[in-house]
Amino acid sequence: MESVNLKRLAKELNLAMSTVSRALRDSHEISNKTKERVKALAKELGFQPNPHASSLRKHKSNTIAVIIPEIENNFFSQVMNGVEAVAGQKRYHVLIYLTHEDYRKEKDYLQSLTNGRVDGLMISVSNTTNNFEHIKACQDAAIPMILFDRICNAVDVPIVTTDDCEVSFKATEHLIKEGCRKIAHLSMSSQLSITSGRKSGYLRAIEKYKTGFEVVLECSPDDAQNRKIIRKLFEDNRPDAIFAAVEKFAINTYQVCEELRISIPEQLKVVSFSNLAAAAFFDPPLSTIVQPAYEMGKRSAEVLFKIIEHKSLFAIEKKIVLPSQLIQRRSTLQQT
Amino acid sequence: MESVNLKRLAKELNLAMSTVSRALRDSHEISNKTKERVKALAKELGFQPNPHASSLRKHKSNTIAVIIPEIENNFFSQVMNGVEAVAGQKRYHVLIYLTHEDYRKEKDYLQSLTNGRVDGLMISVSNTTNNFEHIKACQDAAIPMILFDRICNAVDVPIVTTDDCEVSFKATEHLIKEGCRKIAHLSMSSQLSITSGRKSGYLRAIEKYKTGFEVVLECSPDDAQNRKIIRKLFEDNRPDAIFAAVEKFAINTYQVCEELRISIPEQLKVVSFSNLAAAAFFDPPLSTIVQPAYEMGKRSAEVLFKIIEHKSLFAIEKKIVLPSQLIQRRSTLQQT
Repeated sequence: MESVNLKRLAKELNLAMSTVSRALRDSHEISNKTKERVKALAKELGFQPNPHASSLRKHKSNTIAVIIPEIENNFFSQVMNGVEAVAGQKRYHVLIYLTHEDYRKEKDYLQSLTNGRVDGLMISVSNTTNNFEHIKACQDAAIPMILFDRICNAVDVPIVTTDDCEVSFKATEHLIKEGCRKIAHLSMSSQLSITSGRKSGYLRAIEKYKTGFEVVLECSPDDAQNRKIIRKLFEDNRPDAIFAAVEKFAINTYQVCEELRISIPEQLKVVSFSNLAAAAFFDPPLSTIVQPAYEMGKRSAEVLFKIIEHKSLFAIEKKIVLPSQLIQRRSTLQQT
Repeated sequence: MESVNLKRLAKELNLAMSTVSRALRDSHEISNKTKERVKALAKELGFQPNPHASSLRKHKSNTIAVIIPEIENNFFSQVMNGVEAVAGQKRYHVLIYLTHEDYRKEKDYLQSLTNGRVDGLMISVSNTTNNFEHIKACQDAAIPMILFDRICNAVDVPIVTTDDCEVSFKATEHLIKEGCRKIAHLSMSSQLSITSGRKSGYLRAIEKYKTGFEVVLECSPDDAQNRKIIRKLFEDNRPDAIFAAVEKFAINTYQVCEELRISIPEQLKVVSFSNLAAAAFFDPPLSTIVQPAYEMGKRSAEVLFKIIEHKSLFAIEKKIVLPSQLIQRRSTLQQT
């Protein structure tokens, strides 16, 4: 099929391309009769304006970009659902970039987006990002931007986070109230903003209740390595509870417990950040801290569109903190 | 910060914009000395060419689109990982569209993509799609296109699928060999291509082994409704095994079994299509059929790029069938 573009419309109507273009944009320079002829043929042939020409003319791409570490992760896929709900309503297109926790990829992607390809962007930084010049460069280029979940305080842009510290305090306190005294925290990369929030919530609870046992171990994306760390912890000074900063570390803990025949929750209680609904079907069902991921994607996109549309933000919209939820299941409950 | 565009470069260098543009594109019309001056300043100021101007000139967007039903689903998120790996290497951008199983959204999205916004697209159709005119329209517009997993045979474009029928036969046969005689199949929307593949694999095994029990129940996205269907099935003529076409239905089965105190695998064996690694931690661990989702995304993107680059396809690349894997866990195993 011959493609339907301005050139073809102009040829079939025996008009100049500029006339066709103006007619389609309802210019006052063109007579109503001509406009009607042009629009009728455009409709008949299913003409769709070229988005690149339109973007160039309007300095608008009708596209936003989302830069995230992973997509095979319920948290980030729920965030994408929230973003997409808002973007769809605005009839915007959504580009997705996965950094796979690689700072260089993150930098590359951002650089490729500073040139008008997108009207705005949302970032959750990788765990290897310890330099924020690439984010500052986007800010300097005045690209509307939001940081969410994994943020960096070095850049002054609106952020959307959850109450990591408060809910980590609650989770640790819950373990203490269930009788635990030796609670270890399995932590993520120390470079991440969320790591320090989760860790300080844990430390605050330990301090408040003076349990006298404080162990923070940095785990990694490597399952085998994590299991080794957990096995060593169990040998050295076995805790009676694990508070895992991400679901992966809770699964590693379940694996080591199965291997060493340590029964959960009788000998070890486990709670973890996790947005996996199937955690309810684990053996035993895993107590989780559920982040409002869909809501986070939605709110981030809403604020981003306000910036794109040059609306002013309320102070509260510059730093949104959404509450997470502690769901108690059998993995942390005292036997009855 | 003033944005760095052709205009600014031209102004600072005291050259015409057309000269700057040609110099950056290495035109023979421009002297080497001028080219060097232009490129040096472009580098210094971090100039990035406008992608819309470049797309308009080259009739290329360097972007592909992926249209899928859901992203909060391990299968599709693993597919996205595979797509992204290939697109990243090609330095292509990836647009993502979620139909949420809504045919109208799917149609809308495709219509918005026929105008040069993307160089190619990948689709897995929604379960409410029973008319394929919108896909044919893209084909008529000569947009490079791949259908994957949920395909439609009405359109003649390359497809990438898995061996749904063969692996469903294997899963059903596995249940029979573990002593089951009354196996029911929980099936998806009858409109989906994958539904008939999974169902016919089940029926072939039942026929081969002449178990004399054949029940296919169409489930839905609604958990409560599915639990009702499963409860009714258990009341009427309780099966000794469930073969679930998607993980959701297996989870619904686990829920009903807990409620009615039916023990898995002693009283009921369960196997399901699922790409959820955490199925290994279910109580009991769930036997699964795992689709090669990452590979499917990767192969689909590879074929798509061959079409975009006007390379000819081998016959085998027009209809790729990837093998799935049956993983036996405690939910289907005989007691020892």
